[in-house]
Amino acid sequence: MRAEIVTIGDEILIGQIIDTNSAFIAKVLNRIGVEIHQITSIEDDRDHILSTLEEAQKRADIVLITGGLGPTKDDITKKCLCEFLNDSLVENKEVLAHVEELFEKYIDTPISDLNRSQALVPSKAEILKNKYGTAPGMWIQHNDTVYVSMPGVPYEMKGLIEDEVIPRIKNRYNRPVILHKTILTLGMGESAIAEKIEPWEDALPDAIRLAYLPSLGKVRLRLSMRGEDIQEMEAEIEAQISELNNYIGDIIKGIEEENSIEEIIGDILRNKKASLSTAESFTGGRLASLFTEHSGSSGFFKGSVVTYATQSKIDILGISEDLLAKHSVVSEAVACEMAKKVKELYKTDYAIATTGNAGPSKGDSNAEVGTVFLAFATPEKVFAREFNFGNSREKVVGKSVNKSLEILLNAL
Amino acid sequence: MRAEIVTIGDEILIGQIIDTNSAFIAKVLNRIGVEIHQITSIEDDRDHILSTLEEAQKRADIVLITGGLGPTKDDITKKCLCEFLNDSLVENKEVLAHVEELFEKYIDTPISDLNRSQALVPSKAEILKNKYGTAPGMWIQHNDTVYVSMPGVPYEMKGLIEDEVIPRIKNRYNRPVILHKTILTLGMGESAIAEKIEPWEDALPDAIRLAYLPSLGKVRLRLSMRGEDIQEMEAEIEAQISELNNYIGDIIKGIEEENSIEEIIGDILRNKKASLSTAESFTGGRLASLFTEHSGSSGFFKGSVVTYATQSKIDILGISEDLLAKHSVVSEAVACEMAKKVKELYKTDYAIATTGNAGPSKGDSNAEVGTVFLAFATPEKVFAREFNFGNSREKVVGKSVNKSLEILLNAL
Repeated sequence: MRAEIVTIGDEILIGQIIDTNSAFIAKVLNRIGVEIHQITSIEDDRDHILSTLEEAQKRADIVLITGGLGPTKDDITKKCLCEFLNDSLVENKEVLAHVEELFEKYIDTPISDLNRSQALVPSKAEILKNKYGTAPGMWIQHNDTVYVSMPGVPYEMKGLIEDEVIPRIKNRYNRPVILHKTILTLGMGESAIAEKIEPWEDALPDAIRLAYLPSLGKVRLRLSMRGEDIQEMEAEIEAQISELNNYIGDIIKGIEEENSIEEIIGDILRNKKASLSTAESFTGGRLASLFTEHSGSSGFFKGSVVTYATQSKIDILGISEDLLAKHSVVSEAVACEMAKKVKELYKTDYAIATTGNAGPSKGDSNAEVGTVFLAFATPEKVFAREFNFGNSREKVVGKSVNKSLEILLNAL
Repeated sequence: MRAEIVTIGDEILIGQIIDTNSAFIAKVLNRIGVEIHQITSIEDDRDHILSTLEEAQKRADIVLITGGLGPTKDDITKKCLCEFLNDSLVENKEVLAHVEELFEKYIDTPISDLNRSQALVPSKAEILKNKYGTAPGMWIQHNDTVYVSMPGVPYEMKGLIEDEVIPRIKNRYNRPVILHKTILTLGMGESAIAEKIEPWEDALPDAIRLAYLPSLGKVRLRLSMRGEDIQEMEAEIEAQISELNNYIGDIIKGIEEENSIEEIIGDILRNKKASLSTAESFTGGRLASLFTEHSGSSGFFKGSVVTYATQSKIDILGISEDLLAKHSVVSEAVACEMAKKVKELYKTDYAIATTGNAGPSKGDSNAEVGTVFLAFATPEKVFAREFNFGNSREKVVGKSVNKSLEILLNAL
């Protein structure tokens, strides 16, 4: 069974927004055995929409379309679908009732004809109820292909995928099992890993595919397998991973499946009944944001002090002016003191502190652009490490965040 | 001149990563008059890479390709390009020297044949020097189409686009001017706006295209125009915006161009020589992250206290236990006190505080899931507003962040 995603919207093609919808759809469909063969993003243009639908039909059993369903004139997906299907728009009573109800409950302005037009749908469409908005989802069988049209608003699209699309796919299609396991490694580059594990990689059975996923400071190895019997597949993958441990056991930090490194840390801390706080200078709250992105983070994460200004390191963390004068704000001594103080403030078992110069220009310190100190307080000790992550602001912050997580994980 | 982007990598098709590269490329090329006609994401599969290159050739003058250039076996873009171009790989001395230099300077492990193979490039390729990594960029003219191949690592790709690709495009192509202005509105839904501005929208000249961009709590209106004479175009767009002000002047908060709402706030605060701090509960540092994403934020942003745990509101912000007991942690009184206290702590002119329940389950308060209080301290007063943003964690946090920015902007 082959699926494709088509995202429609000028804002994607001019780079005004990042298409996060496709990644979400791909991830959740992959879990139920649906492979996404291609993702195509095109502007709100009649000819291009029609030709894209035509081409997708040749390759895919199901085409998932997002975007272009708003009530305003720039949204033309519904019209184009009708033209493509040789169909016409009819008013759907249930959708109309839902739109009216939403307006009554949540929206201050009175309902208008434009809002009511959301209830116009192609006559061949099966309606997918959009609980979170006025534009309905649509499921349309045409020749041998199914077209699913959804709004581009992420939480509306997500609700439709989870509540309406996935159950229908499960009911109507035979699907293989697709299994991915992603092994998180820290501390070695991708080519060095590739050389170390070459005999293992070469001996992998054809059914298993290996991918290297390097990113700022970490390399993930993904094993992917398609099959019928989930138990057998799990066993086969487990056996391969255990064999892999003989080659690079020292740098393997965990199996990701769904979990990011901050979630692995969260699980360990919750199991230990231990807590964490952070003091962030140039990372500006990014560590705190990462930890609190996941529900359940209140079980271990107590909070953060973002001391972007040097003065606030004195006022809030209680770093002494002498220490700052003696070592400068970007220094091992100050990083360690920040970790120690924030651990005390939040009464936590562990703490991370960051201080550095992310650039583009030098700040309250003479440290070179890219110089960072990452400090860690554990129940036993406080220590820091120095890095230079180069001259790109994005890279310095990104690498520092990943490196902090790596060092904390090793310390746990 | 028509461009397309092709991103290659299984990790995109299984939803393991979000394709941020395309948005970056689209944005910076759009600025120099290059329109992206389509973005296509495909897996690391020979047949699909070849058919995608073939199809792109029919539509585009230039095809920008990212991904699949790593040294490991799963990366096959270079081989596929060779096959497509009827070309073969040759060793490039300059690339080899660069790879050797990078290893000597930055990498602990010794250089290997796998690393040296990064210097193998199609003989027809013009090399684009990748300052930040070992995989070279390539510029290849084939029939009437140019293929540009770049690594998928975001900061390597960005360096190549800025240093190598843009200068070549500027030199070698005639390009129109493309002008976008995005008007930020706050406080009215998209269909209500559409009805209010209908006479204006209908009278827009054909050369100007209008798009509605609704997102959590705000609607942006984008005007796009292609032409030759930037001055004339600017004047025409300005005239249209000033006309638009007659219809919805009360909800227009700024012209975005490149600027996000937090940048507009930053500009105003810097001009006023005023400063800002935040106290964040359920938003977990997201406001701080937003403000500090942009270089120059240290000019007004002093820091944040993330008090994820209730106890830390007492310990660090100095909220009294009586107040918490009397009103509960999710309340107007506590939100106001948080704003007041963080403003004092960081000695700032303005402060934002957030407290609420983002779900999925109830926390240290009986407040319903979705209930939030956003509080603001200004030099004159402290005030809070209550909202219920529904039952999706992502939506509650996202809407709260945007609403906070809106209210602060109005207060400035």
